[in-house]
Amino acid sequence: MTKWYDESGINGDVVISSRVRIARNLENIKFPQAMTLEESELVNNKVIRAIERADEHANYDYFKIKGLSPLDRHVFVEEHLISPNLIKDFNRSSFFLKKDGKATIMVNEEDHLRIQTLMMGLKLDECWSLCSQIDDSLEETLDFAFDEKFGYLTSCPTNTGTGLRASAMIHLPSLVYTGYANNIFRAVSQIGLTVRGLYGEGTSALGNIFQISNQTTLGETEEEIIQKLKNVVIQIIDKEREMRNNLAVSRKYEVEDKLYRSLGILKYGRIMSSEEAMNLLSDVKMGIEMGIIKDVDAKDITNLMILIQPASLQKYFDREMDLQERQIKRAELVREKL
Amino acid sequence: MTKWYDESGINGDVVISSRVRIARNLENIKFPQAMTLEESELVNNKVIRAIERADEHANYDYFKIKGLSPLDRHVFVEEHLISPNLIKDFNRSSFFLKKDGKATIMVNEEDHLRIQTLMMGLKLDECWSLCSQIDDSLEETLDFAFDEKFGYLTSCPTNTGTGLRASAMIHLPSLVYTGYANNIFRAVSQIGLTVRGLYGEGTSALGNIFQISNQTTLGETEEEIIQKLKNVVIQIIDKEREMRNNLAVSRKYEVEDKLYRSLGILKYGRIMSSEEAMNLLSDVKMGIEMGIIKDVDAKDITNLMILIQPASLQKYFDREMDLQERQIKRAELVREKL
Repeated sequence: MTKWYDESGINGDVVISSRVRIARNLENIKFPQAMTLEESELVNNKVIRAIERADEHANYDYFKIKGLSPLDRHVFVEEHLISPNLIKDFNRSSFFLKKDGKATIMVNEEDHLRIQTLMMGLKLDECWSLCSQIDDSLEETLDFAFDEKFGYLTSCPTNTGTGLRASAMIHLPSLVYTGYANNIFRAVSQIGLTVRGLYGEGTSALGNIFQISNQTTLGETEEEIIQKLKNVVIQIIDKEREMRNNLAVSRKYEVEDKLYRSLGILKYGRIMSSEEAMNLLSDVKMGIEMGIIKDVDAKDITNLMILIQPASLQKYFDREMDLQERQIKRAELVREKL
Repeated sequence: MTKWYDESGINGDVVISSRVRIARNLENIKFPQAMTLEESELVNNKVIRAIERADEHANYDYFKIKGLSPLDRHVFVEEHLISPNLIKDFNRSSFFLKKDGKATIMVNEEDHLRIQTLMMGLKLDECWSLCSQIDDSLEETLDFAFDEKFGYLTSCPTNTGTGLRASAMIHLPSLVYTGYANNIFRAVSQIGLTVRGLYGEGTSALGNIFQISNQTTLGETEEEIIQKLKNVVIQIIDKEREMRNNLAVSRKYEVEDKLYRSLGILKYGRIMSSEEAMNLLSDVKMGIEMGIIKDVDAKDITNLMILIQPASLQKYFDREMDLQERQIKRAELVREKL
């Protein structure tokens, strides 16, 4: 299967990926947290049928969460292909994964349907366009709960309206290094956007990677939400690039030393936590984007940022491991890939 | 010229080098700190003549300190070929350096003569034997101040008697790492030996390298002093080796990780203080001696430990540098040599 993160993207020196997801619920069926197992099966079956009717079933793989090993479930989460929430109540939930890796239709997560699109680089318009197209094709068969006044109804009121969350995963090592990141995040949150860590709400910003997304889903059109987010991301990209250029001049040796040492540790370390690895990989990515580190491919780094996560690591070595073994094998994997 | 540290030595996994020096003074001439410039010239000339009479002048190079650039003076100190004291009052002092690099006759240091021999590895007997032989050949011409009761008279009473100081420079990374070093140093000082840092009295133990030497020069024969020091050094060698073996089993990955990371930083760093470089080189040497790091030569590490010192570094790049430039060029040199 193609991995979405094997590609390189537009503005890929700062933006790792773009993502759009919409929440939809079927009329006259209780929200997932209130429904019976039978009702959840009904939802599953309705979605399967809708995809078949849209003649899209050949383009998707279908996975029931309970049919996946716990390891495989977490690998999909680490790859950002499904949400952590989807695997919590694993008897009810399932998902359709588009074979090019760019779209997932999650069933019985917090809402009956969560349609997500994911692409490398700054591709918010493309993500929205694909998401909207999938939405339309499903709506031909499915009746989505919709209110004239509020828009799409969702399990959690914060999603009601467009049901849309758009986000960009951005790598801001220079803004963090120089201490500017916090100012920017404050400004961003004042205009109704949210900054989160690598794996969404409540997770920390490993490897200087942040998710910036819209907070509100009501009172604006989808296009307005996307456009606003895009404008802000472009401003942040400019700021990060400006800071990299400044650092390259004003703190040349200090920065080169830091970035190269991180490469040295990645190439020679024998025990490594995922947190440390993320930060070292962040440095190397910064070094590549700044033209300081030349013999490493940025794509390999983005790839490693997912491969070194606990489940993906165990999947790679094809066995379960305890914490210590993971730290040893993580260092081995990193050495192998660099 | 052959550098003494280009060879590898007996018990070289722990003992870097052995050194013996004896203090001698000429009869009826004031000690250096009290004498006139004319008297210091007289001493210089007497020693030159004694070496000529012994037909040894072809085996030595002769340097007046004032004839050397400040940089060259410090290079000799960093190479342990002369003492820091010798270059302090540079109008009076000089030295003869044996062409194989193993012996130095310092003139007008704290005493009129300081004869020093220096060899790689544990070679205290050989150092003493060479030192004694040079002493004998000079004594055929020179009258050394000698008292029936006290032995050889010296400027500082702590050297009176044999005038002998024997020392071994030992590398004890495992004893430091496990915290045992301090216990051992306490025990050593209780039996009349002294532990010092890399460049003698008052210097710190960079790179886990310690000088262990006799404290007393009176009341024991030279052979007894040498034998006692040798016995203690052998015990410390055994202890360090035992600790390395223990670490290789009980903390295998932790130790490998630490040592390899140090190699990684040495190979990739862009700014490096001499203190940090010494500690990283110490780790790599430990890794080589333990058979963990295989593609680096221990001799290159010992060599680098001297080359990265401030004066030697500037000599290598053939120009004077400020602190920041030294740190950049030190990292460059290390990368080049590894």
